[in-house]
Parts: sequence; structure tokens; C-alpha cells
Amino acid sequence: MDFYIMTLFPDMVMEGLNTSITGRAVSKGLLSVEAVNIRDYAFNKHNSVDDYPYGGGAGMLMQAEPVYQCYQAVKERIRSKRHKVAPDGAGNPGGQKKPRVVYLSPQGQTFHQSMAEEFAKEEELILLCGHYEGIDERVLEEIVTDYVSIGDYVLTGGELPAMVMVDAIARLVPGVLHNDVSAEFESFQENLLEYPQYSRPEVWHEKRVPEVLLSGHHANVEKWRREQSVIRTAKNRPDLLEKALLTEAEILLAESVKEENIEE
Amino acid sequence: MDFYIMTLFPDMVMEGLNTSITGRAVSKGLLSVEAVNIRDYAFNKHNSVDDYPYGGGAGMLMQAEPVYQCYQAVKERIRSKRHKVAPDGAGNPGGQKKPRVVYLSPQGQTFHQSMAEEFAKEEELILLCGHYEGIDERVLEEIVTDYVSIGDYVLTGGELPAMVMVDAIARLVPGVLHNDVSAEFESFQENLLEYPQYSRPEVWHEKRVPEVLLSGHHANVEKWRREQSVIRTAKNRPDLLEKALLTEAEILLAESVKEENIEE
Repeated sequence: MDFYIMTLFPDMVMEGLNTSITGRAVSKGLLSVEAVNIRDYAFNKHNSVDDYPYGGGAGMLMQAEPVYQCYQAVKERIRSKRHKVAPDGAGNPGGQKKPRVVYLSPQGQTFHQSMAEEFAKEEELILLCGHYEGIDERVLEEIVTDYVSIGDYVLTGGELPAMVMVDAIARLVPGVLHNDVSAEFESFQENLLEYPQYSRPEVWHEKRVPEVLLSGHHANVEKWRREQSVIRTAKNRPDLLEKALLTEAEILLAESVKEENIEE
Repeated sequence: MDFYIMTLFPDMVMEGLNTSITGRAVSKGLLSVEAVNIRDYAFNKHNSVDDYPYGGGAGMLMQAEPVYQCYQAVKERIRSKRHKVAPDGAGNPGGQKKPRVVYLSPQGQTFHQSMAEEFAKEEELILLCGHYEGIDERVLEEIVTDYVSIGDYVLTGGELPAMVMVDAIARLVPGVLHNDVSAEFESFQENLLEYPQYSRPEVWHEKRVPEVLLSGHHANVEKWRREQSVIRTAKNRPDLLEKALLTEAEILLAESVKEENIEE
């Protein structure tokens, strides 16, 4: 999968993503991440890409033309990369497909795990990062296919949200995580939070690892972990529980936890 | 305000935050960001900080002791910095206050703008980034004061969420943003999304800037922008509208937009 990030701060994006798991997946050739500098497509001698907003107001706005030219350049890169992979168009049914362009903005739909899974099926993804007060509406109308927000908070630009999206999507690309690790995310899938985990030593600061985890009794361990997940979800995120598949006993457990919470 | 980020990837965090507005605020001395490497507090000759989880399961877990020792070192740094600022304790009523420690985790409460405002009042904030399958529960119980999630998606570690929190909180620290720009975020505060914005030229790709924005009539501009905000919020985030303060006319406008959405 190929990620293209249109930004005014390409170094920030590349350095923040080059470490850790995404970086390793890039060097293994499982995915590519390229940050494209919108400023390279400035059309005036000052290299400026921003201007005042019509109608007045605070701050500056990113202009339509540099963003549009940058997008054209990215599209051309995608076209030539697709051509290299399958010069005759054979075995490349996606060859004609317009790439999706995500604009990171508090105006967007809130990002969540199933959206990440959907994006992970794409061959390419273009992420557009706004800065200053935003981007001229007309170029957004022309090129953007998806408006996405990573949460209900205001950030100084779209770069960190783009990095968050790349990280969440990249780890779903086959081969990026070891198979055994990828199982972990499924607990979130089931709308339950993770159970508590413990590692050596058995006693730390007078706190013992729960006895059941030392028992070697696999079924009991699983039962305990599942209960802990239900308890935690009921305590911290009762909104998720409504979407979880629970046994009758688990529903009763969750109810009693919620009642305790209210009494506190 | 001083941020301390406990992480296995200090370079990623520092490089990702050094650019742009946070970086400028750091060089102006308005805030400080320090990434502290948990690996420096490994207590064995292999420098390892992770081990298998008790009870079995996929992946490795960060052990309690290195995290705890790292935390002690950060606390000591905070203590000595507070002492330098006010050696006799005068004018430093927060001098005895235990710093808040945020653990970034899908288990946490979902981060949002008013949480950012609350954190912005702190003098220090410690952010703890998990990696691998998480951190031994016992050290979390001992040091963490707040569990925060930036959204309902799974990431490869706590580093990007920590950077997101620093960015959202830092821009609320007085002086970090120019005063005129900071007004912008208030539209989000009112639970309305931003209106569309336009910059030069007046006509781009045959799309004209809306006439009212060229009129110079300030009251009409404000009226149009407010309407656009209501329309957008009704279209994209009807859940936010319920918390917004609207006039009777605006409620009717929002209702008609929502009805159109359903008909589509």
C-alpha cells in the first residue's frame, strides 16, 4: 500500500513515521510513505502558499492552486508507479481507479477502527494536511473524496492526524504485524477493552500477579481475562458495551459494575 | 508548561513535535517538551524492558520496574526545576503537588477539547507511552492518574497519541498562538463546525467566491458564515448540534438540512 501525504511539513511527517513498526514495514517493502511538500507547487516568486481569507477574519488560508498542482503531481506519480507494476494494464484492475483523497479536518467524520479497515483495502491513499486556518473551499470540493477527523479536539495542523491514520491503517496491511500480535486488536473489534496484563516478577512492590495467571490452566485464564474485559468496559466505556456480544452472565456482571459506579 | 514524555522512541516524539507551532513555542520558552527514554532505566545487562505476559498470549509486555524508575527520574527533574524557579517555595503553591501522569491507551476516557483545556492549566504533564502489548498493570496502578484514549482505533504505540495531546494542549497555553488566531477554535467550542473559507483569486476553476464575502458588509458576512456552520454541522455531525446554542431560525435551518440528508 502506498501513502502520499500532501503537507507543508514533510520532514515532521517522515521523521515521525520512520521509527517503529511503520518504518520497519517500509524497509521490508510492504508499504511506502511519501510526504510531498505543497510549497514546492507555489506559483509565485515568494514561494508563498497562503493568503488572507475573503470576508475578513483571523489568520491565513492555504490557496487553491498550489494544493491542486501538488495533487496533480501525486496523481502522476501514482499513474507511473501503477504503469511500472503492470505496464500493459494486465493484472491491475485498479489501474483506472481514482485514488481516494482524505482531508484531515474537524469537519470530517470521526475516524474509527472499521474506517481504518476499509482504507486498508486501498492500493493508494492520499492524505491532505491543512495548516493555518484551513484550505480554500474550492480545491477541497474538487479533489477531496473523504473528510476525516481523528477526534473532537483542535490541533495546529493536519500532520499529526495524517500520521495517526497511516499508523492505524498500516498495521492492518498483511505482513506488517506478526500474525500472533495482530490477534490483539480483535478484542477492540468486539467492543470490549483489554484485560490487565502482568509480567515478571511475580511480586512487585508487594503486588502479586493474580493467582489464576500462574495456574497454567488455559480455560480459567481465558475466563478471567474475558471477565476483566467486561468489568473494565462497563467501568470506563459503557457506551461500547451496548455494541458488544455478551452472554447472559456477562450482562449481569456488567450491570452490577455499572451500579457500583453510580453508587460511588 | 512542561511536558515529559516517557517512551521507548524519544527521537520520534521530539522530531515530530519540533516543527511548526509547538517547536516555535519551545524556542520562545513558553513551554518545554522532553522525551525520556524508558530503556535508559532497564535493570538488566541486555537493556531489555519487555517480557512475556503471565497466563500466556501474544506479544511482549513492558515491565513494571523500568517504567517506575523512569517515572522517579522524571519526578526528580520536576522537583529540581520547581526548586530553581522558587527556591524558598514562595509564589509556588503547586510546589508540593503531585504531577499528573497520563497513560495513553484505548482503555482510557476519550480525549476532547474541554479535557485539553483542563490539562492546559497544569504546570507539568507526564505522558506515558505504551508499546508492544502494553504495560504491567501494577505500575500503572501505582503511578497513573489519568487514562486517555485519542479515539476508537488501534495504533502501534502511545507515541502519536502523546504528540496529539501535546499539540492540542500546547496551543491553549497563553502566548503560543497569536491572539487573533486563537479565536478560531471557539467555533468548535460552540459545538459548530467551521464555515467554508476562500482566498484569492476570486474565480478559480470557474468557481466564484460567494458574493457576500466580497461585499465588505461585515454583518452579512457573519450571518452567512454562521448559517454555513449550522448547515455543515447538521449535515456532517448532527450529534454535535444537540449541544449547540441555536436561535429558533437556526434550529429550523438545521432541521431542514437533516431532512434533506435523510431524503438523499
